[in-house]
Amino acid sequence: MIPRYSRPDMVAIWAPETKFRIWYEIEAHACDAQAELGVIPKANAEAVWKADGVAFDVARIDEIEAVTKHDVIAFLTHLSEIVGADEARFVHQGMTSSDVLDTTFNIQLVRAADILIADLEKLLAALKTRAFEHKDTVRIGRSHGIHAEPTTMGLTFARFYAEMDRNLARMKTAREEVATGAISGAVGTFANIDPAVEVHVCEKLGLKPEPISTQVIPRDRHAAFFAAMGVVASSIENVATEIRHMQRTEVLEAEEFFSKGQKGSSAMPHKRNPVLTENLTGLARLVRMAVIPAMENVALWHERDISHSSVERNIGPDTTVTLDFALARLTSVVENLVVYPETMLRNLHKFKGLVMSQRVLLALTQAGVSREDSYRLVQRNAMKVWEEGADFKEELLKDDEVRAALSEAEIEEKFDLGYHTKHVDTIFTRVFGEA
Amino acid sequence: MIPRYSRPDMVAIWAPETKFRIWYEIEAHACDAQAELGVIPKANAEAVWKADGVAFDVARIDEIEAVTKHDVIAFLTHLSEIVGADEARFVHQGMTSSDVLDTTFNIQLVRAADILIADLEKLLAALKTRAFEHKDTVRIGRSHGIHAEPTTMGLTFARFYAEMDRNLARMKTAREEVATGAISGAVGTFANIDPAVEVHVCEKLGLKPEPISTQVIPRDRHAAFFAAMGVVASSIENVATEIRHMQRTEVLEAEEFFSKGQKGSSAMPHKRNPVLTENLTGLARLVRMAVIPAMENVALWHERDISHSSVERNIGPDTTVTLDFALARLTSVVENLVVYPETMLRNLHKFKGLVMSQRVLLALTQAGVSREDSYRLVQRNAMKVWEEGADFKEELLKDDEVRAALSEAEIEEKFDLGYHTKHVDTIFTRVFGEA
Amino acid sequence: MIPRYSRPDMVAIWAPETKFRIWYEIEAHACDAQAELGVIPKANAEAVWKADGVAFDVARIDEIEAVTKHDVIAFLTHLSEIVGADEARFVHQGMTSSDVLDTTFNIQLVRAADILIADLEKLLAALKTRAFEHKDTVRIGRSHGIHAEPTTMGLTFARFYAEMDRNLARMKTAREEVATGAISGAVGTFANIDPAVEVHVCEKLGLKPEPISTQVIPRDRHAAFFAAMGVVASSIENVATEIRHMQRTEVLEAEEFFSKGQKGSSAMPHKRNPVLTENLTGLARLVRMAVIPAMENVALWHERDISHSSVERNIGPDTTVTLDFALARLTSVVENLVVYPETMLRNLHKFKGLVMSQRVLLALTQAGVSREDSYRLVQRNAMKVWEEGADFKEELLKDDEVRAALSEAEIEEKFDLGYHTKHVDTIFTRVFGEA
Amino acid sequence: MIPRYSRPDMVAIWAPETKFRIWYEIEAHACDAQAELGVIPKANAEAVWKADGVAFDVARIDEIEAVTKHDVIAFLTHLSEIVGADEARFVHQGMTSSDVLDTTFNIQLVRAADILIADLEKLLAALKTRAFEHKDTVRIGRSHGIHAEPTTMGLTFARFYAEMDRNLARMKTAREEVATGAISGAVGTFANIDPAVEVHVCEKLGLKPEPISTQVIPRDRHAAFFAAMGVVASSIENVATEIRHMQRTEVLEAEEFFSKGQKGSSAMPHKRNPVLTENLTGLARLVRMAVIPAMENVALWHERDISHSSVERNIGPDTTVTLDFALARLTSVVENLVVYPETMLRNLHKFKGLVMSQRVLLALTQAGVSREDSYRLVQRNAMKVWEEGADFKEELLKDDEVRAALSEAEIEEKFDLGYHTKHVDTIFTRVFGEA
Repeated sequence: MIPRYSRPDMVAIWAPETKFRIWYEIEAHACDAQAELGVIPKANAEAVWKADGVAFDVARIDEIEAVTKHDVIAFLTHLSEIVGADEARFVHQGMTSSDVLDTTFNIQLVRAADILIADLEKLLAALKTRAFEHKDTVRIGRSHGIHAEPTTMGLTFARFYAEMDRNLARMKTAREEVATGAISGAVGTFANIDPAVEVHVCEKLGLKPEPISTQVIPRDRHAAFFAAMGVVASSIENVATEIRHMQRTEVLEAEEFFSKGQKGSSAMPHKRNPVLTENLTGLARLVRMAVIPAMENVALWHERDISHSSVERNIGPDTTVTLDFALARLTSVVENLVVYPETMLRNLHKFKGLVMSQRVLLALTQAGVSREDSYRLVQRNAMKVWEEGADFKEELLKDDEVRAALSEAEIEEKFDLGYHTKHVDTIFTRVFGEA
Repeated sequence: MIPRYSRPDMVAIWAPETKFRIWYEIEAHACDAQAELGVIPKANAEAVWKADGVAFDVARIDEIEAVTKHDVIAFLTHLSEIVGADEARFVHQGMTSSDVLDTTFNIQLVRAADILIADLEKLLAALKTRAFEHKDTVRIGRSHGIHAEPTTMGLTFARFYAEMDRNLARMKTAREEVATGAISGAVGTFANIDPAVEVHVCEKLGLKPEPISTQVIPRDRHAAFFAAMGVVASSIENVATEIRHMQRTEVLEAEEFFSKGQKGSSAMPHKRNPVLTENLTGLARLVRMAVIPAMENVALWHERDISHSSVERNIGPDTTVTLDFALARLTSVVENLVVYPETMLRNLHKFKGLVMSQRVLLALTQAGVSREDSYRLVQRNAMKVWEEGADFKEELLKDDEVRAALSEAEIEEKFDLGYHTKHVDTIFTRVFGEA
Repeated sequence: MIPRYSRPDMVAIWAPETKFRIWYEIEAHACDAQAELGVIPKANAEAVWKADGVAFDVARIDEIEAVTKHDVIAFLTHLSEIVGADEARFVHQGMTSSDVLDTTFNIQLVRAADILIADLEKLLAALKTRAFEHKDTVRIGRSHGIHAEPTTMGLTFARFYAEMDRNLARMKTAREEVATGAISGAVGTFANIDPAVEVHVCEKLGLKPEPISTQVIPRDRHAAFFAAMGVVASSIENVATEIRHMQRTEVLEAEEFFSKGQKGSSAMPHKRNPVLTENLTGLARLVRMAVIPAMENVALWHERDISHSSVERNIGPDTTVTLDFALARLTSVVENLVVYPETMLRNLHKFKGLVMSQRVLLALTQAGVSREDSYRLVQRNAMKVWEEGADFKEELLKDDEVRAALSEAEIEEKFDLGYHTKHVDTIFTRVFGEA
Repeated sequence: MIPRYSRPDMVAIWAPETKFRIWYEIEAHACDAQAELGVIPKANAEAVWKADGVAFDVARIDEIEAVTKHDVIAFLTHLSEIVGADEARFVHQGMTSSDVLDTTFNIQLVRAADILIADLEKLLAALKTRAFEHKDTVRIGRSHGIHAEPTTMGLTFARFYAEMDRNLARMKTAREEVATGAISGAVGTFANIDPAVEVHVCEKLGLKPEPISTQVIPRDRHAAFFAAMGVVASSIENVATEIRHMQRTEVLEAEEFFSKGQKGSSAMPHKRNPVLTENLTGLARLVRMAVIPAMENVALWHERDISHSSVERNIGPDTTVTLDFALARLTSVVENLVVYPETMLRNLHKFKGLVMSQRVLLALTQAGVSREDSYRLVQRNAMKVWEEGADFKEELLKDDEVRAALSEAEIEEKFDLGYHTKHVDTIFTRVFGEA
């Protein structure tokens, strides 16, 4: 995570202030539950809420931690400075640091997921708008980077929409994966704290109680969470790759928006680089690289070891911040993408009708010409296009043997682009529920 | 995938015979739909079913492919040898090879998922049985590999159950991810084939039509599928790691089942190696290594490039076969694990009550002793245990200052293991719905 | 590893026959050393060589292993069947299975490295030939997929040469990494066997004795080996990506060789797909995916656990076979690549001189025109090219304000391609030692 | 990279101040070379050195970049503010931003490598000291976590030494991989700048000229660099895993140093957690996760795309800083590790001589007892140890059938630990050149 690729809302989730606020809420709600159970006096539970609204002094907590070498104790000490040492003396009773730390980490991930879900919804809106705008903008479809058959730019946007819609579902599932909390003590037995505390705290914080925890919340949940982000990142790379191809000089079917102010543009008007989508390609790698460590974190020793912690301190913020930034950047790229329909048509016609050769072949066969002869006929006309730059349709119209099988109208019909776009509405209805 | 780590049912899914059978079904159902649409004669569609029940000759197909250099054409040629060239002449009409190949790959993955789901269900049954068997078998819980507080072996099995139950849900979701088919033509526009064909074929084969495809089914689906397997594998490693620790000489709380026949066992009875769970640790790495390539496969160029194909030809079979084998092996390990409750108790008492020091500390505080004094009292008795091998409870009972705050009964109560297991039923009910 | 992407020599290294032959050589040489030390009778050591030249019966060994459940014992039993039980009774004395297994694995990796090194040398030869052939074939250089400044196709080949030459050095280093053997016993102390045996066996087999082993040879060596292969694979992807770009319809500066026999070519002459380089892109992912598991294999428990074994049984053959195949395929692609110099020139001139705009800008500044004015002058002419399709040089020649600063000859000179190729010889000399 | 796991010297390499200082040196040396070539006036080249010793104003540069959106231009503008606009007007002439950026990145990596190499040397010194200290400290060697045969703690340290010594060599090779610079212009042709400038700048900065670059230095170099760090990290995990095992309650053969001040130690003296080595296990995952993205960065499009940049902006600092921290932490752990030789002996004797069963088996055979009988004899005595806790040697001495083959002295000899340590000096000499 570096400022250049960060947005403030996601960064804020990982700020010390946010963390301490969540710690506080967990502790305060836990006190309420303990008081309700009669374990601690109600007055003490109520007293903890005196700190509600107070901004915790991060520097002071760091100062205490430098002495105690324990972050949760440092925080509790600071809390008692605010609430009063006597009033605060029951705070954290029966709890283990991990109860606070793990529940907090999950709350942060849930909040991160909420932002990522909102990001995806914005991206979907942008893709849908562009899809409908270019529903009928014909371009050549390509397999292996080679012209195949016509499609439309709307279909390109629509398939990215469908893919990102699946990613939305994945992120929602991933959010549920980590939306649990645990207040179950040193090895997860609730020996020193009633399960009712966990239930209460989780309810207040929008989590489900972890059915069974050890000292920690099981890390398969987090592995699944990071894996989902890895898939989303790979889809971002997919869209980015398409745009990078479209913008390359020889294709030039679209360009990232290029603001007037950006230096050097008009003296070298051809030199508009798809730097945003190239950047997204790199960011996708960064998001993806967290997947394996998150999976390696699953196999902790016995009721916990702390090997996962250093990993999560890094990939927790880094991956969510990077993915948030990437989704927002991609949304902006999609919204502002400059599409060139004329170039699309020009590219489509680069080989003067050759992309229709398969249709012609099929038509000849269906008209009763043998497979071998059909192939020979198409081939001899195709080679004129390929080698001499002739126009395929013109050549076919001039070829007597072809004409013996197909009328002018029939040949003309084979070059009708409408043939290729006739099911666009069907597909749009599948994807968007409307066309 | 090597025979040593393979099971026949999963291997069969990836056999050429299976593949050709699926190809056949796709083509035959497609003919039915085409006939229904009036695109091809009904008689020809019906004729294709003549090959139903015929085992395709893989060697013959390979022979043809050696000439045509195209696997689908080779198959179709062979099919026409069975059905009759004339009857078969409408087979595959309007379709693209990828329509067949991608739909087939998804069917194979769905079938693989079905096996993996069944594997997980068997593993869950084994874990549940062992969990209830050892619900009350007390053992020491450990954090950082260090004794912490008592827990039970049943809780250990129960948490693996809960984790694998989440994996079951993940595999079911993953199955849905890939349960789609596409018959949409060269660039996904249905230019040469009606969408109704896709709908019909998918319905017959238990798939959903891919809402929008290009030449291929989008690979984010497969990335999610392989990522799910990566999480399952990481959980396998988690269970394996626990068992490896339990079996190590100094712990010896459990052993993998060691059949009488295995050479060398009784002359070196201490030398029973947890080779199955060590093997599972390695297999987990193999499953996990497919995750990143599967994600790298998402960003294909335009309407498709074929870079994903070589990857999938390997990780498709390798990863599913390895995971199937690993799940079955783990199930067997769990079912047959030899648990040593006496050793568990002996280990728990290794430090003669020291693991209860925190409870005593808390009790002293609650009895009105100041935090500092409580700490000092616990510390001086703990050090006798640590340095001289004394018994913690005995020392406490002999310590007048301690006894001034706590009665003999109160001290005894702190060493009651029941204190730690009192919520086991609650947790079991959460996990299993019963206790 | 699947036959489709395998070559026989590399596959043979991993065949059971090869493995047993290596086992045999290790055992026989070890007997010689033991006899030399006086530990076993010379006659028995000599007797073992009776099996030299005998092909081991893999099926028989498998049969024995099915009973003994131990591969090395099965082999030794079979060996005693050949040599005679009595003569063979000192074979393997003082040794541990891992002594044989690990030394064998390293020998296989060394042989694999030798093939990969030869592969790289062939690839280098091909790249060099093509580099010199196209040393002066001008094409446009591109950054971000956008035309930048002219370069030559020879430089493209030359940089791939330099990169693969570094890979050659890396593979040689990697080979040295694994060229060690160990015969050091159960925990590496030589308790039951003299270090001289290890020294003798290693010398005979072209290895260095592992300075310190445990039961196994340390796996950081293998991690480094697989990492080196991962880098080579990434370079293969690099070359493949370049060729895929060159072959895409709109660029078409080169094509993979397309044999006459390949079906469908001439009826759709535009539809020649860069399937080999796309395939190489996928194969690169397969090679790369072994890197992390190989690194995860390093941290074995104490003097060894067997988690690495299942990983290596797969990635050992799979990765070396795939990389060998990929290097050979790439060599063939490079050797046969069809290069289109005319298209290169046509592409270079796509924007009618615009790629020279920066040179013109610089020239104006150097002629004393202010930076702002220079920019304005270039811009107004560039926009005519960009928007109206004019020729940049013509426009500049017609622009009085430009002509006030630059003469016709000076303007002409800015469009001289020789300006860009003047240091090609220098670079070639750096790369090849000649130009 | 987070402050918790960072050390200042490595962090400083990646500070903006350092970066700008390197940029400055590149530009200034380039001016000298240009002046020497007669391309720019000597006075202007000399003037640039006026800024030598001036600390660049990072905030000011950021301010300019906010307007120009170009970091190198922002820096050059700031430089001209210091040197004087007129004097500075030839700075950067003929160069491309990447000339500066890539050369700088390599310089940073070289400096990072220098720190890592020094770190490794310190770690090696610590390992050597501890190896000699515990050369003869006998402990049980373990395979599969199960007692095997005796070894010494010195051998454990020695093998980590040998492994880290290989890592030292790898890091030195990695350093050479990236110790190149390039000043070759927009597509690497030196069209606008003489190769002599590159040669001069590289010489001044301790680099070798990149033999052939494009707009960028080829990324296979960096992939190899990050791969080397991944191997080093895996070795760190290896050492950390050993120590974590040694510290676990049931083994307790060593402990990380536990400072008196650390809270909670003495009241729960058993609860000393190997948190540093657990942390190192996690840090290893973080270092390793950069390997794949670094390899994915190799295949840039044509003469460059910028996808690698965002990856390197993160993994450049993150990975080097984390590895530096990890190496230093490991060195401290090794230096301060508290080793418990008595516990080692106690553990070794846990099964009362059973670990010697293989030696006894061999001795019986060598004494002429048949293989089957030898096995039976060992077995019946071993089972008494295993099942009744008897002492293996005592049982053997009491067994008449055993005694018929072996004398008391011969049996005693089998339990001599010196048998296992007799080659320690040989191994030390191999590893350290002395014993």
